[in-house]
Order: sequence, then structure tokens, then C-alpha cells
Amino acid sequence: MDLYTELKKIQAPDPLWRQRCETHWDNIVKPLDSLGLLEETISQIGAITRREDVRLERKMIIAMCADNGIVEEGVTQTDNSVTAIVTENMAKGIANVNVMGRFSDTTVLPVDIGVAVDLRHPGVRNRKIAYGTKNFTKEPAMTRAQTEQAIAVGMELAAEAKADGYDLIGLGEMGIGNTTTSSALTAVFLNRSPKEVTGHGAGLSSAGLQKKIQTIQKGIALHRPDPQNPLDVLSCLGGLDIAGLVGVILGCAIHHLPVVLDGFITYAAALTAVRLAPSARSYLVASHISKEPASRLLIDELQLRPIIHGEMSLGEGTGAAALFPLLEMALAIYRQNNTFADAKIEAYQHFAEA
Amino acid sequence: MDLYTELKKIQAPDPLWRQRCETHWDNIVKPLDSLGLLEETISQIGAITRREDVRLERKMIIAMCADNGIVEEGVTQTDNSVTAIVTENMAKGIANVNVMGRFSDTTVLPVDIGVAVDLRHPGVRNRKIAYGTKNFTKEPAMTRAQTEQAIAVGMELAAEAKADGYDLIGLGEMGIGNTTTSSALTAVFLNRSPKEVTGHGAGLSSAGLQKKIQTIQKGIALHRPDPQNPLDVLSCLGGLDIAGLVGVILGCAIHHLPVVLDGFITYAAALTAVRLAPSARSYLVASHISKEPASRLLIDELQLRPIIHGEMSLGEGTGAAALFPLLEMALAIYRQNNTFADAKIEAYQHFAEA
Repeated sequence: MDLYTELKKIQAPDPLWRQRCETHWDNIVKPLDSLGLLEETISQIGAITRREDVRLERKMIIAMCADNGIVEEGVTQTDNSVTAIVTENMAKGIANVNVMGRFSDTTVLPVDIGVAVDLRHPGVRNRKIAYGTKNFTKEPAMTRAQTEQAIAVGMELAAEAKADGYDLIGLGEMGIGNTTTSSALTAVFLNRSPKEVTGHGAGLSSAGLQKKIQTIQKGIALHRPDPQNPLDVLSCLGGLDIAGLVGVILGCAIHHLPVVLDGFITYAAALTAVRLAPSARSYLVASHISKEPASRLLIDELQLRPIIHGEMSLGEGTGAAALFPLLEMALAIYRQNNTFADAKIEAYQHFAEA
Repeated sequence: MDLYTELKKIQAPDPLWRQRCETHWDNIVKPLDSLGLLEETISQIGAITRREDVRLERKMIIAMCADNGIVEEGVTQTDNSVTAIVTENMAKGIANVNVMGRFSDTTVLPVDIGVAVDLRHPGVRNRKIAYGTKNFTKEPAMTRAQTEQAIAVGMELAAEAKADGYDLIGLGEMGIGNTTTSSALTAVFLNRSPKEVTGHGAGLSSAGLQKKIQTIQKGIALHRPDPQNPLDVLSCLGGLDIAGLVGVILGCAIHHLPVVLDGFITYAAALTAVRLAPSARSYLVASHISKEPASRLLIDELQLRPIIHGEMSLGEGTGAAALFPLLEMALAIYRQNNTFADAKIEAYQHFAEA
């Protein structure tokens, strides 16, 4: 698979389908546009999947799980072992994302794309590229070949999801240290100082936060990656989990699948994907705005409007899982066919000036 | 029932129960506080209901339905007839709030507290106080006795919900013209000009918006209600639906039931309730921030943090219904008892300085 050949396949959805969905909405008995972003998201999904009869039957969260060499610098509160435990919990169906995903019958697919140990649970999809990345203060986190391989894994899983009839994909992740890699990518792509884009992650102390910022500064100073070259940035400072997520996003865009972001790590992946293929942006749905401080910067750069403002920062895909029932509720109204004509009510009108 | 005697029963929940819930959360396998406002809301519900073993089994949306005399001034896009149609649709189970409420097994109780016509569907609770209110540009919308009667209806329904074992109450409403009455209350309580706090409601044109603002100005100039006297403000400019909602809020506070707001009309009711009994604030949960322009002012005055930012403005109780599955997802994590000890992971620590 040549990545650049694949990227050329990505085009923005045809606006014709969005218009058809919007017209459908305008005939439902309720004030016009009164479901706001929920309504817009259903129309966006209709445009992406090229059907007015929008479906959200089959939903899957693809959770990319990997370890990060940077953890040896002491940038996290817990050690690497948590990555493996939570990844296996996802396979057992007992992780937080499973508990939440159950409310919308969502399949959770944990993918070992780079966990530091071998995982035995058969529910973990083994696509391991390495036993974790390298410490980016000493060498590039990944080789360019590893990065492209991880992107290819994500793209293949998106293709598989399409072939299996999934209607909606959510992103999830598990990887101790991945707010550090995400902040490093954000600093480079947005040309911000690490201090501006780095937060406490999963409960770091203030001393730990200083260490995390310094570590990111050191990594950027060592590699000086070219912001115009997303694969270079990702290889030097990213992680296998993020690269896998970039691949899922690109794959969803290629295969006309809507893809729901989770939190901060997935925003960093989304920005990387959009830098590689700007039209991929149209396939993204923002579920929630994460508590991590750089979230607003990334979301604004991506021009997205997250629906849930819950100050969440759990990861795993829980933010995506939280959005799914909201989308299902909106779709139920869209599909109920309780139209103005049925209800014998005069339809609301759009006013050009309103 | 003497209203002022009832109001004296309202006290803020005991913080001990909130602490117990917070301690319970800290033992769940996830970064501390990482479910943000969802986590806080579960703890708030535990504090209100005085149990660490928080329950959300039985949920009801009480939808106060009434007509507003002010509609004859031409402040709405549709006429009064829509109030009756949607109220009956709620009883038939086909209104938008029913469709959304079904996702969380929520009972919807439409209450005719002042619809302009007689409603025949047995699923509508008949507590009609009048066939709509009066036109407030000519006379007070309600007599003081009607206002107190409507509040009493809401308080009784909250007491009944408690007796029936409900764990969570959501507010809903249906009443053509009730963004006009809500804006009028907001202008008086917050000492703002009607222009600042009045929006397009359910799709009013710009000319219609000007008419709506002038109508509110005229009503305030006629009655000059005393902002320190919430019952006076409510009688002169409010509606039977809003007065009923005030009663539900006060009743929930008396009976230790958490009460989830919907949109703009329910914020106006909440502010009225809190002006009558400041401790009632602790019983309120904000579901979403409505698109109506005065929403942010009211939410800030109430010191609430809405979780859903969906630019919704449908009413009926749909915002409350949208929040319920999010609370259920958070509760499922709270109750799963997947603790750090079970998972053999060292617990996260709170850092005082973080």
C-alpha cells in the first residue's frame, strides 16, 4: 500500500446528500434546527454515507493501545503496566469504555499496536508493530517505516469495519504516556510552546508537569521536526497508538465512514490526519471537549464543535461512547416520520434574515 | 398549603453524602475526576437522595403545558393550537420528548395546567387552572391565587413522584409563547433590557423579534413588578407552565429529589424558584445550554454548568431526556465495582497542588 496513493482517494462528501437530510429534518414536527448540532451531525453522517435514510445500527470503537518509550523519563503518574491491564480489560468487556459503550450496543475493538508486553486475551486484536516506542529525548520514537505501518493498520481496520457493515466508528486509545506524545505533536503542529499545550494528563503533580514540559522541549529541540511534514513529526514525537488512530481516520474518510473523536489524544491524531489529507476533516465528529488544556486549540484548528462539555478526561473512547446515545436519540426523531402533514400543523418556515 | 411554610423546609443537602460518593468514585479504576461533571452530578444526586448507592432506576419528565394570552400580540410563529396538539402527542407517546426519553426508560407526564382548550387524552394529567393566561400588555397574566395554585400543582406532582419511588425528575414544557414570558421574567430578575434577553424562540422572523421585544417592554412598563417579589413578577409576566415548573423544583427540593432542567423556559422557572428559596439551587442539574440568547446569563446567575452544548432549542424536556443516558452511563461505571484493588493497579493519587 502506498500511503500517498491512498490519500489521494480522500474527497469531501457530496453536499447533495446533506441537503437531502436537511430537507428531511425540516419536515419533522419541531421548531426548525432545534436539535442543533445533533441534527447537523445526523445530516453530516447522511452526507458521508451517501444516504438520506441514515443508519446507526452497527457502531464500533476502535481503541489503539500502545506503550510509549518516553514514560521512562517520569512523565506519568502510573507505569507502563496499566496499558496492558486496561487493554485486556477492554477485551474482557470490563473497561470503562465497554461499560459506557453497552448503552448504545457498541462493539469495542482493542488493538495491540504496540503494547510493551505480549497480551494473551483473544479479544485483543494483535497488530503489534513494536514493544512500545523509543524514548524521544534520545532517538525518534518510531522509524518512518513503523509509522507508515501503524497508519496502514488503522486504514485496514477501517476498511474491515466498512466491509463488516459498520455505520459509525469511534476512536479510543490506551497508552500510558500518550498525553505527552500528543502535547509534543500539538506544540509542533500549532507552533506553540510545550508549556502552553501540556497538562496534568491522568493526574500528574505540578512537579511532574514541569518534568513533562521539559521532556517535550528536549524532544523537540533534539529532532526539530518539520511541521510541514506530518509523517516526520509523528515519527519523531508520536506514538504507535496515535499513528494507528491517524490510519483509522484516513481509512474512514476513504471508505465513507463517519468517525467520532474521543479526547485530546484523538484530536492530535485528527490534526495529523488532516495535515496529511485536508478533506479528511469532513468525516470527523467531535464528541466532547477534553479537560486537557490544549483541547480548545486543537478543536478550533480542526474547526469542530464538540457536543458534550463534561470536563471529561478518561480516554479509552469513553467520550465517543458518551455521544453515541445522543446521536441515536436524534436519529430516532429523524426517522419517526412524525411530519407536519401527519400532525396537521402548519410547518415552521425558515426566515432568510433570522 | 401555605407556600411560605413549605419553602422553609428547603435546605441544602448534607455534604457528608457527597463526600461518601466522591470517595467511592476515587476507588474506581480510572484517572481521578476523569468523568468530570458526570461524576460530580452522580455525587450530587447521592447527596440529594442521601445514599452512596446512587439509583437512577425510575425517571420521569414532568412536562407543564399551558397557553399564554400574550400570543394574541403576534409574538410567535405558530398559533395556540400547537400547544394542545403537542401536549396530546406527549400523552400518545409520539412527541419528541417521548422518542428521546425512551432511550432511558423515562416516563413522560404531560400536565395540562392551562391549555386553552379541553384535552381528551387520558394520558394528559388534568390540573387545568385556567384556559390560558391573560395578555400581560393589558392585565396581569395570572392572579396571585392562580400563581400560587400552579406552584402547588407542581409541588404536589413532585411529592407524588417521590411517593411513587422516582429517583430523578426532569422538567419539560409545552406552551406557545413561553419564550416571551421567560424573557420577560429574565429581564426583570436580572435587570436587563428586554432586547438583551429576547431571542427568536421557535423560529420568529426579525420583524417578529422586534414585536416580541416591544411587547415585553410594554408589559414591564405596565406592571413594574418588584424584582424582590418573585411571586409578583411571576403573576404579572409569567405563565401557568412556568409557575408549575417552579412548583416542581420546590417540591423536588422539599422531597430530596434531583431535578434536571431542560432549556430556557426551565432556567427562568429555576431562577424564580431560587429567588423564592435559595437552597433549592443545590437540587438543580443543568442538562444543556439552550440556543436562546439569555441562556448564558441565566445559567451563570444559577451557577450551573450544563453538560450538553448542542445548540438545542426544542423544548418539551428533550434536553433533560438527552442527559439521562449520560448520567446512566456514568452511574454504570460508578456501580461496576471495578476497583483498583480488584484490578491490581496502584490507585491514582490526588495532589493538593494539581
